[in-house]
Amino acid sequence: MKILPVKGTRDFYPPQMTVRNFICDGWKAASLRSGFVEYDGPIFEHLQMYQIKSGDEIVEQLFHLTDRGGRELAIRPEITPTLARMVNQQVNALPRPIKWFSMPRLCRAERPQKGRLREFFQWNIDILGVEDVLADAEVIFCTLDYLRSAGLTSKDVIAKISSRKLLAALLLHLGIAADRLETLYPILDKKAKLPAEAFEEMLAKAVESSATVKTILELMAAHSADDILHIVPDVAANETAQTALDELQRVFGYLKAMGVAEYCRFDMSIVRGLAYYTGMVFEVHDVVGDLRAVCGGGRYDNLLKDFGGPALSATGMGMGDCVLEILLRERGLLTDETFKRKLDYFVACTDAALTSAALAIAARLRAGGASVELSYKTGNLGKQLKQADACGAMRCLIVGQEYQDGGKVVVKEMATGEQSLVSEEMLLNRL
Amino acid sequence: MKILPVKGTRDFYPPQMTVRNFICDGWKAASLRSGFVEYDGPIFEHLQMYQIKSGDEIVEQLFHLTDRGGRELAIRPEITPTLARMVNQQVNALPRPIKWFSMPRLCRAERPQKGRLREFFQWNIDILGVEDVLADAEVIFCTLDYLRSAGLTSKDVIAKISSRKLLAALLLHLGIAADRLETLYPILDKKAKLPAEAFEEMLAKAVESSATVKTILELMAAHSADDILHIVPDVAANETAQTALDELQRVFGYLKAMGVAEYCRFDMSIVRGLAYYTGMVFEVHDVVGDLRAVCGGGRYDNLLKDFGGPALSATGMGMGDCVLEILLRERGLLTDETFKRKLDYFVACTDAALTSAALAIAARLRAGGASVELSYKTGNLGKQLKQADACGAMRCLIVGQEYQDGGKVVVKEMATGEQSLVSEEMLLNRL
Repeated sequence: MKILPVKGTRDFYPPQMTVRNFICDGWKAASLRSGFVEYDGPIFEHLQMYQIKSGDEIVEQLFHLTDRGGRELAIRPEITPTLARMVNQQVNALPRPIKWFSMPRLCRAERPQKGRLREFFQWNIDILGVEDVLADAEVIFCTLDYLRSAGLTSKDVIAKISSRKLLAALLLHLGIAADRLETLYPILDKKAKLPAEAFEEMLAKAVESSATVKTILELMAAHSADDILHIVPDVAANETAQTALDELQRVFGYLKAMGVAEYCRFDMSIVRGLAYYTGMVFEVHDVVGDLRAVCGGGRYDNLLKDFGGPALSATGMGMGDCVLEILLRERGLLTDETFKRKLDYFVACTDAALTSAALAIAARLRAGGASVELSYKTGNLGKQLKQADACGAMRCLIVGQEYQDGGKVVVKEMATGEQSLVSEEMLLNRL
Repeated sequence: MKILPVKGTRDFYPPQMTVRNFICDGWKAASLRSGFVEYDGPIFEHLQMYQIKSGDEIVEQLFHLTDRGGRELAIRPEITPTLARMVNQQVNALPRPIKWFSMPRLCRAERPQKGRLREFFQWNIDILGVEDVLADAEVIFCTLDYLRSAGLTSKDVIAKISSRKLLAALLLHLGIAADRLETLYPILDKKAKLPAEAFEEMLAKAVESSATVKTILELMAAHSADDILHIVPDVAANETAQTALDELQRVFGYLKAMGVAEYCRFDMSIVRGLAYYTGMVFEVHDVVGDLRAVCGGGRYDNLLKDFGGPALSATGMGMGDCVLEILLRERGLLTDETFKRKLDYFVACTDAALTSAALAIAARLRAGGASVELSYKTGNLGKQLKQADACGAMRCLIVGQEYQDGGKVVVKEMATGEQSLVSEEMLLNRL
C-alpha cells in the first residue's frame, strides 16, 4: 500500500536536513555568543496550559489528544508556556539572570500557506529576572547578530521596535477604557496584514469616537517621539508615556552602542496581538516587505505570575524557520556551498580479496576522527571514483595492487587529481 | 494556577540539555565518521502507517489524535516507517547506497519505568540498497564506534549478534510450520526478559513437541556454529542454514578487520521480537547485564516492498537515549567536565556611566565569534566576578576606571587570577 505524509508537514531528505541544520546551527551559535544556555521541554503538555497565555483562540490551532489515562494533552504550538512552567518549578534554585534559548519543533493546526506550515522549528531566546531594558536590547541584539551572521544586511531586514507600555499609555490618554485595551491590541496588530480600508473599518467598530480613531491611525504611523508629541501634544505631561518613551530611547541607545542601529527603527504600528506584552515589542521584517514577519518578541513581565509563580520580569523573541528559509533563499544566502557534503575520505577497493584491508583502513581513519565512506562494490575503479566524487570526498584512497605488493595505498586528491603512494601508517599519522 | 508536566515526559533544564546534547553530538559525529547523512520526518504520521510494520500491538502504544479534517494521526513511536515511506517516495532519484541517520524524538504511551520513558530520543542508522553483509558489519561497526568514543570498553558493553535467517532455517528444520514462525519470534525474544521457568512454559504452549522445545532451548544457548552442529548435527546438510552461518562468519570477519571484534559475540538467544527481520540481528547489552538492551537492529529486506515500494534490501540500528544515559552515568562517563559551561568572556562594568562602552565591547567580541556574557548590574565588582565564575567564563573583562582614564580594560584570567591591562583594539585582534 502507498502511504503519504500528513498535509502541512515536511520530510527532511538530506538536502532539506542540511538547510535545517544550517539554520539551527546558526541560531545556536548566535545564542551561545550572547551567553544564552539551551533548554527544552516535552513535545506535548496539558492542554489547559496553552489557554492561560493565549486564550481559547490558540486551542483551535492545537493538535490535541487524549491519552489512555483520559488526560487532555496538546502538541506544543509554542514553547513560552513550557518555559514559564519550568522556570516556576525551580524558580528559587535557578541562577539569575535566566538567559535561555531553545529551538523547539512546534505544531499548529493551521491552513498551510507560504511561510506557514503545520509543523515548524522556532528559535526562542528569553531573559528572565532583569527589569532593566538592557535585557530588551540584548534580545534584539542577539536576534540581529544571528541575521547578520546569516548574511542579511540592513538592506534586507529591519527591526521595527515599539513599546506596548507606550501604546497603552497613549490609548488610555485618548480616553480608551482600560478594560478595552486587550480587545484593541489584536485589532491594531492587523494593520499591516489588512487593506487600509478594512483595517480602519475594523478599528471604527471597536472605538466609538471617530476623532479617536483618526488619532490612533495617525499614531500608528509615528516613527519618533516628536511624531507622537506632534499628534498628541498634551501627552508630554503623561508620566507613564514619558517613562515608556525614555525606556525606548535607552533601548535604541544600547542598540547603537552594540553596533546594530542601522537595522533598527521605531515604529508605533508594531503592536503584537497577544495580551501578555508589557513593554518593548518588536518584529523583524524583510525590507522588500512581502513576507510575513521573520520574528517577533517583547517584554512580558506578568506571565510567570499568571502561571502560578512569583512576579518575574521577562523579555524574549521567537523566530520560525519557514519565513527565514524563504528569505535566505530569496537573498541567495543558501548557496551550493551550504549543500556540499563534506567527507574526508572515500575508500575504493579494486580487488574483492582486499575488502578486509580496505575495511581496516576505513575503520582506523574513522577511529582517528575522520569521516570515511567506502565502496560496497569492489572492482571497477572508475565507478568507485565517480561515487567518491558524488559523496563530496576530499580524497579517495585506492586499495589495490600497490597494497598487495607493498602495503601502500594510492591517495588521490579529488580536486586536483594528484596521486601519491602512502603507507597505512603515514595515512594515520596525518590525522 | 499551578501546572505540572505530563507524566513520563522530561524537562530539559540546562544541565539535562547538556547531557542530551552530549549524547546527540556523539551520535551525530559517529554517523558522519562512518559516512551516513542526516534525514528527519514529521513528528506525526497517518496512524495506519504504524500498523504495517508492527501490527496492532504498536497501536496500543501510540499517542493518537484526530485532526480537524478527521484524519487519524499518531505521534511517531519509531522512525523506520517514515524512512520506508520517504525512500519509497524518491526511490529512483536517491543516490545509492542510501546511508542515512536520524536522531528523532519519539513517543510511546507505555508505563514509564527505568530506562523507558514516554518520550525519548533514538539514534537510527540505516543502509539501504546493499545486499551484502558488509552493510550489516558497517551498521554494527558504527554503533560500536560511537559507544567506544563515549568511553565504553568491551568490559562495559557487548554486541550480541545472531541471524534471523539462521534461526528460521533451524526452526523449519526442526519441523516448525512456516506460518508459525512469526508467532514464535516474539516469544523467543522474551528469553532474557522472563524467568527461565516462565519462558519455558510460554514456549511449551507455542510448540507442540516437548522434544522440539528442548532442542530450541539448547539452540538458544548456542554461541558458535559448532554448538549448533552439536545440537542439530543433520543441519550440516541444510543449505539455507549453511548460507546463514557463512554470512554470519563473514560479518564477524569484517568486524575483526575493523578492530571491534572484542566487543562482538555470536549469541543465538538474540531474536528481536518484530516479524520484519530477515537476516543479521543484534543487540548491545551492558556486560553487568541489569539494564535493558542499549540498542538493537538487523537486516529487514522486505519492509520497503511492504510499504508499497520496490524490493530494496535494508539493514539498520536504533539506540534510545534513556538506557544509554543510565549506563554512561553508572560508568562515570558523564563527568563534571561534561557539564561545565564554556564561555569565553564575562564583561563586568564598575560604573553605570560606562554601560554603553561595556555593551560595545561585548557586542564586538560576539561579532568576532566569541561567547560573551555581561553583567546586567553595574557597580559591585565582587558580585560580578562571582557571576563570571558561575558562568564558567575563562576571562573577565572589567570596564571601569582604567577605561575612563585611558580606554583600556582589565583582563582577568579566571583560572589564575592574573590581570593585565589591554586596549579594546588588542582585545579584538586576539580573536
